Amino acid sequence: MKKCLENVRKNVPLVHNITNYVTVNDVANVLLACGGSPIMSDDIRDVEDITTICGGLNINIGTLNQNTIPAMLLAGKKANALKHVVLLDPVGAGASRLRTETALQLIREIQFDVIRGNISEIKTLASGSGNTKGVDADVADAVTEETLEQAIAFVKTFAKQTGSIIAVTGAIDLVADGNTCYVIRNGRPEMGKITGTGCQLSGMMTAYVTANPEDKLKAAAAAVVVMGLGGEIGYANMQPADGNSTYRNRIIDAIYNMDGETLEQGAKYEIR
Amino acid sequence: MKKCLENVRKNVPLVHNITNYVTVNDVANVLLACGGSPIMSDDIRDVEDITTICGGLNINIGTLNQNTIPAMLLAGKKANALKHVVLLDPVGAGASRLRTETALQLIREIQFDVIRGNISEIKTLASGSGNTKGVDADVADAVTEETLEQAIAFVKTFAKQTGSIIAVTGAIDLVADGNTCYVIRNGRPEMGKITGTGCQLSGMMTAYVTANPEDKLKAAAAAVVVMGLGGEIGYANMQPADGNSTYRNRIIDAIYNMDGETLEQGAKYEIR
Amino acid sequence: MKKCLENVRKNVPLVHNITNYVTVNDVANVLLACGGSPIMSDDIRDVEDITTICGGLNINIGTLNQNTIPAMLLAGKKANALKHVVLLDPVGAGASRLRTETALQLIREIQFDVIRGNISEIKTLASGSGNTKGVDADVADAVTEETLEQAIAFVKTFAKQTGSIIAVTGAIDLVADGNTCYVIRNGRPEMGKITGTGCQLSGMMTAYVTANPEDKLKAAAAAVVVMGLGGEIGYANMQPADGNSTYRNRIIDAIYNMDGETLEQGAKYEIR
Repeated sequence: MKKCLENVRKNVPLVHNITNYVTVNDVANVLLACGGSPIMSDDIRDVEDITTICGGLNINIGTLNQNTIPAMLLAGKKANALKHVVLLDPVGAGASRLRTETALQLIREIQFDVIRGNISEIKTLASGSGNTKGVDADVADAVTEETLEQAIAFVKTFAKQTGSIIAVTGAIDLVADGNTCYVIRNGRPEMGKITGTGCQLSGMMTAYVTANPEDKLKAAAAAVVVMGLGGEIGYANMQPADGNSTYRNRIIDAIYNMDGETLEQGAKYEIR
Repeated sequence: MKKCLENVRKNVPLVHNITNYVTVNDVANVLLACGGSPIMSDDIRDVEDITTICGGLNINIGTLNQNTIPAMLLAGKKANALKHVVLLDPVGAGASRLRTETALQLIREIQFDVIRGNISEIKTLASGSGNTKGVDADVADAVTEETLEQAIAFVKTFAKQTGSIIAVTGAIDLVADGNTCYVIRNGRPEMGKITGTGCQLSGMMTAYVTANPEDKLKAAAAAVVVMGLGGEIGYANMQPADGNSTYRNRIIDAIYNMDGETLEQGAKYEIR
Repeated sequence: MKKCLENVRKNVPLVHNITNYVTVNDVANVLLACGGSPIMSDDIRDVEDITTICGGLNINIGTLNQNTIPAMLLAGKKANALKHVVLLDPVGAGASRLRTETALQLIREIQFDVIRGNISEIKTLASGSGNTKGVDADVADAVTEETLEQAIAFVKTFAKQTGSIIAVTGAIDLVADGNTCYVIRNGRPEMGKITGTGCQLSGMMTAYVTANPEDKLKAAAAAVVVMGLGGEIGYANMQPADGNSTYRNRIIDAIYNMDGETLEQGAKYEIR
């Protein structure tokens, strides 16, 4: 994974983000922290030009609206045509019809390299994609040691069906293609008390996959480890009066300062 | 007020925010800090579903536009129909016709549990609501010890007319229904040098009122105390080189770390 | 430059920002830090009223869209009619047709007091404005000691053509009208690892020029020095585990704490 990190710092992948306005600043700063470079653009007349000059595209439906949905479709198709990396973060799929339907439309019309969400969002996509044969719709609502086997089978099956790397993040993170699954145990529960660690991870993962075309699966898994390890290092740096707002800064700071050795030594994963 | 804080931490109220893009990230983080959970959504096709799964709705007109105004109306009416808590933050009412008219339309078409603003915004609403009988339009432009009596009478009258809890924040904060007014003296003047402490308070107040349905007035007042006390504790934690940007983080951190005992001991209020 | 800083703190210029949603919160906080006051508004029905009550208008095309472009034009013309200060930050001009064409339309239809960008953005405007006589389109892509003479001549010529102060920021910063060029060497390369230091500077520069109508050129240059010196002081305050996210806060903090003496002593510039 050391090599994946170093490739990001060396190649400085330019990432086009169509993302929500809640966490967009943190997404930009974490992209800079990890060694990438961010551009944000969401107007239908702007996105094709911007995606063309980038290496990767990160589509996040967190605060989607009637103007940004067509822009997401247009940008994604352009990125596909250019063979750029495209990632989907289906924020809130399952929470509203618009989000669920938009996420499903996006995976129908765009070929994503990676789809990254929590287990509930990914299950929504799997059961809603009209292609549930082989997908166990009864997979548990959290990935725990007890439900791990079942969850791994689920993400591999959904990866096979979509042709995308599937990343499910939670207490235990899974990153899989049809054959191989990284099971990752980095991170801290306190990260859930910060808005946008998932959005940040999606931005950073787009940079990692873009800078490591020869092994996209490992690169996606490396991004998950960097985020989780950043959370651990940031937590170790907390002072007595610190809370979630300072923790946010300390995580991005830890990612900024992370080198390949630290990553290699701190990574906690197995391959299944 | 201890109980109000503990109910937020226990119930984890989910708050739907239609809010400005300037301070939205801080609103999300302060909601997490106090024990609530934030969702942001502002598209007309999305807001009804999102508000349905939430307990409270926070409408902030800070950067309103032609797409979000209809979404605010739709979401507010849905929240009313579901008997969810709804709060209005009329940012900039009085500063432009669009903001004034939108705020007035919102209070005509939606029954708010709470309206929270500065004295100038609240006066604009009171004099513009076409229902100024009994409202002293000449109430002073700042709530000070000298103008306190008059201001208390004003907010109680406006609360009676609207059927809403009225929260006026400034050097002295007032939170009143038609009969009872909390006069709160927590806070620091330096909080005015941070963007969005008012927006943060509105988000947090929505969580407090949602988690304390049996005493909404006290819950709204408790949120004001938490914000002000957070400002005091955050200020006490300032280091020599710190300025307004770090102060912002320290306030949210203080709210994250606040417990019921600290709140009870630090609260400075009287009931009038 | 001491006087310029003190005028901002004394006059508290109110600045209307039509800016991107990526860095908008930092723009608001840096405006407060330097002594100004921010308002954000971007709806076509809102911007004329808001600009009317402000002293300056900051137009930043970072995440422009079909709704905000007409608002930019409307607000800019209103500010011109009122003889308010207007600044353009042509973020990404040259990166997409929409951005380039919008920036060019803005400088055709609005008389800007200041245009601030990086050398690539400013060159795009100079060569695209259909008025390139005398503008050396072959000016180098970075302002260095080697290319300084040529770059100074370029910005002076473009300033003369547009009637605007031209501010080109990079490793060496240039702020010029048709006759005089401030060459500024404050700042730190690490500032490039934070999103939005350019956007912050544009907001702050609008406040500086607004508060110093008697010497707009010096005021624009002073804002560049304040930003760069803030970057130097913030860097000196960095602790071992700090990274780009905390650095962002430390720069704004340094601007918050900066007084005229510190500015005068830390300023590194020459006039050419």
